[in-house]
Amino acid sequence: MSTNTSNSMTISEKIFSKAAGKDVKAGDFVFANIDRAMTHDITGPLALKGFYEIMKDKEDKKVWDPSKIVIIFDHQVPADSLYAASNHIMLRKFAKEQNILNYDVYEGICHQVMPEKGHVQPGDLVVGSDSHTCSYGALGAFSTGIGSTDMAAVFASGKLWFKVPETIRFEVEGNLPDHVYSKDIILHLIGDIGIEGATYMASEYAGSAVRNLSMSERMTMCNMAIEMGAKTGIIEPDEVTENYLKERISGYQLDPHWISDTDAKYSQVRHYDVSDLEPQIACPHNVDNVKPVSEVEGTKLDQIFIGSCTNGRFEDIEIAAKIIGDEPVAKDVRLLVIPASRTEYLKALKAGYIEQLIEAGAIVESACCGPCMGASFGLLGDGEVGLATSNRNFRGREGSPESFVYLSSPATAAASALTGEITDPRKV
Amino acid sequence: MSTNTSNSMTISEKIFSKAAGKDVKAGDFVFANIDRAMTHDITGPLALKGFYEIMKDKEDKKVWDPSKIVIIFDHQVPADSLYAASNHIMLRKFAKEQNILNYDVYEGICHQVMPEKGHVQPGDLVVGSDSHTCSYGALGAFSTGIGSTDMAAVFASGKLWFKVPETIRFEVEGNLPDHVYSKDIILHLIGDIGIEGATYMASEYAGSAVRNLSMSERMTMCNMAIEMGAKTGIIEPDEVTENYLKERISGYQLDPHWISDTDAKYSQVRHYDVSDLEPQIACPHNVDNVKPVSEVEGTKLDQIFIGSCTNGRFEDIEIAAKIIGDEPVAKDVRLLVIPASRTEYLKALKAGYIEQLIEAGAIVESACCGPCMGASFGLLGDGEVGLATSNRNFRGREGSPESFVYLSSPATAAASALTGEITDPRKV
Repeated sequence: MSTNTSNSMTISEKIFSKAAGKDVKAGDFVFANIDRAMTHDITGPLALKGFYEIMKDKEDKKVWDPSKIVIIFDHQVPADSLYAASNHIMLRKFAKEQNILNYDVYEGICHQVMPEKGHVQPGDLVVGSDSHTCSYGALGAFSTGIGSTDMAAVFASGKLWFKVPETIRFEVEGNLPDHVYSKDIILHLIGDIGIEGATYMASEYAGSAVRNLSMSERMTMCNMAIEMGAKTGIIEPDEVTENYLKERISGYQLDPHWISDTDAKYSQVRHYDVSDLEPQIACPHNVDNVKPVSEVEGTKLDQIFIGSCTNGRFEDIEIAAKIIGDEPVAKDVRLLVIPASRTEYLKALKAGYIEQLIEAGAIVESACCGPCMGASFGLLGDGEVGLATSNRNFRGREGSPESFVYLSSPATAAASALTGEITDPRKV
Repeated sequence: MSTNTSNSMTISEKIFSKAAGKDVKAGDFVFANIDRAMTHDITGPLALKGFYEIMKDKEDKKVWDPSKIVIIFDHQVPADSLYAASNHIMLRKFAKEQNILNYDVYEGICHQVMPEKGHVQPGDLVVGSDSHTCSYGALGAFSTGIGSTDMAAVFASGKLWFKVPETIRFEVEGNLPDHVYSKDIILHLIGDIGIEGATYMASEYAGSAVRNLSMSERMTMCNMAIEMGAKTGIIEPDEVTENYLKERISGYQLDPHWISDTDAKYSQVRHYDVSDLEPQIACPHNVDNVKPVSEVEGTKLDQIFIGSCTNGRFEDIEIAAKIIGDEPVAKDVRLLVIPASRTEYLKALKAGYIEQLIEAGAIVESACCGPCMGASFGLLGDGEVGLATSNRNFRGREGSPESFVYLSSPATAAASALTGEITDPRKV
């Protein structure tokens, strides 16, 4: 529990103070106003049923504010079962009746579409019925995953109870070596602190190495905050954030309020220097089972997946395409490339990377979650070994419980696609 | 039963004579040598099990001739279930052990890959464990679908019993009007003769309208021969065939033997003139429930699927892209475009059509069967209405038994994508 009695606040405390309408500190319980709520095709149907259960005695069964809710189809698209098709029909009808914005099966992964389409701003309190909602902290929002029944309450009231979280600040300094990326940083941090190291905390990433990251790379880091147990990953907004938002929200100007005060209280400040960081790999079957690539080089692979809300953006595809060049994907390994959104897909296509990857032997699919959650398609069979740029490698996460998933950056994934085994991208 | 006692033969009789090693006629039972056998990821596993059952007492469990067998993964790719993933693993192992060519999950639909990669020639007797194997008749082969257990026997022996089929000759004359294609011809023929009209026959397509068709358009017609009950669709090879094969088989030269003799005996000769043919639509729930587009114009659609072994080639995508232009796909309708093979995908991509279609709002996936067989992805839910360029619209074929599937050409499908309802392509 926080013992902070000064007026200094972390960015997360500032956001909850705005959302609660009064100054609050870590440890306080607050009934917070939600700025934006996101749900998708897997968790949406239960949220919707919960909402109608709450509203059953009301005559006017309207959501609190349709302009603040976004529905995105990304997990089972295009419908991969009759159950999915029914869920899609149900959500489309709900969106239409309630006048809610619904990104249908062609737009992309929720965590990419939300920031890309300008639905998130610094200082916002955002909830989504998906654990990786923490991604939007890259824009200086407090953004977190909630369950479908909590989402039902948000649909009805626009409010939710929270305990204002403590903050761990990660001060990451140094210039990243060639072929080492923000994915390697976040894997390193998770390996260091462990999967429960930041439980119910805000993981605030700072320091020169973080400041130097693009928005895409920042999203990768915030996306994986949940893998250390954190409630959100968050980065104080700066000119990178401002430039990203100016392209998406007309007239947007950065509000200097949304940073942590210099004397804000943290439960921990951890210091890292990444100047000599090796490419990192999370090994089966836990995200914190992280090793430098040199320790697992040569591990034979059956499938490589470049995509997901963690690393499926244009920059990620560009990194992969540049490493692959005009070489073919190794025989006996399948390379799956699934862009995070239609917009990112089109950017990669116009730049020639999609053609290049297909020529190399990659399978490129429309934007969606793909094999990341062990359903839909691209599943690993018994005994198969996969390398993925996604965020989780729990047993069975990408298919069979008898399969093995390693996690890496797109650079390491691309280098490994050329050889069919885990390969250090600095060596190709 | 044939009463043909002359030496004149149809092309199908000539092929069976070669395969039987003696002159045979329609109605004869023959034990024929197979030139090429194809199996895929759905029917392959059962063929493989049957093969090992046949071979269980043999010491040398080798297939008859690995160079004559081709395995292609296309129905559940990339693996859409653990069952599919296991099947893929089993088939990859079999292919490796037996030294059989295996086109893995990235190459495309079997019926496109077989001719495209030069595995079929005029005069060949080809079997495949898929009902639309009849497609390769477009190259002047006798090509037909068989069950998995028959395929097991072929794997073991390279031979199979057949009754040499009677032939129905379809003489199709006239110049096709603008926006009317071979798909409209074949739908018209099926509507006319009915789904059992050519049961266990060879459907031989001839006449000036057929001669004028490209190889892609010929494949569309032969592909759907099974929808009138035929054992194969077949077109006598000519310079179109020769040009197609010269690009694929080094030193290929057309053998003038593989045509029907002028006085060959047919069970029926049917005459058509397509000069005034309207675009045709097969309505739910039978392929022979065919109507001119004007009778069903305005039918609201939820999903449009351009793809499949029937109409998923470059030419089909080009027709669709040209109709769509730079207009957006109608709101509330999903347009799914799935090229028939990686090669066709790349051709469309290089021509700019993939970008154009994605910009319009289409969902473009890697080459595979897609929703055609009501599994994998792109399924229709209860009450939904789909228009597809594929070959079957049986109840539940593309998803829910409570959904409705119409079949058309890519032109009609593209015109309908712009409006969200069945639309005459001559009117856009």
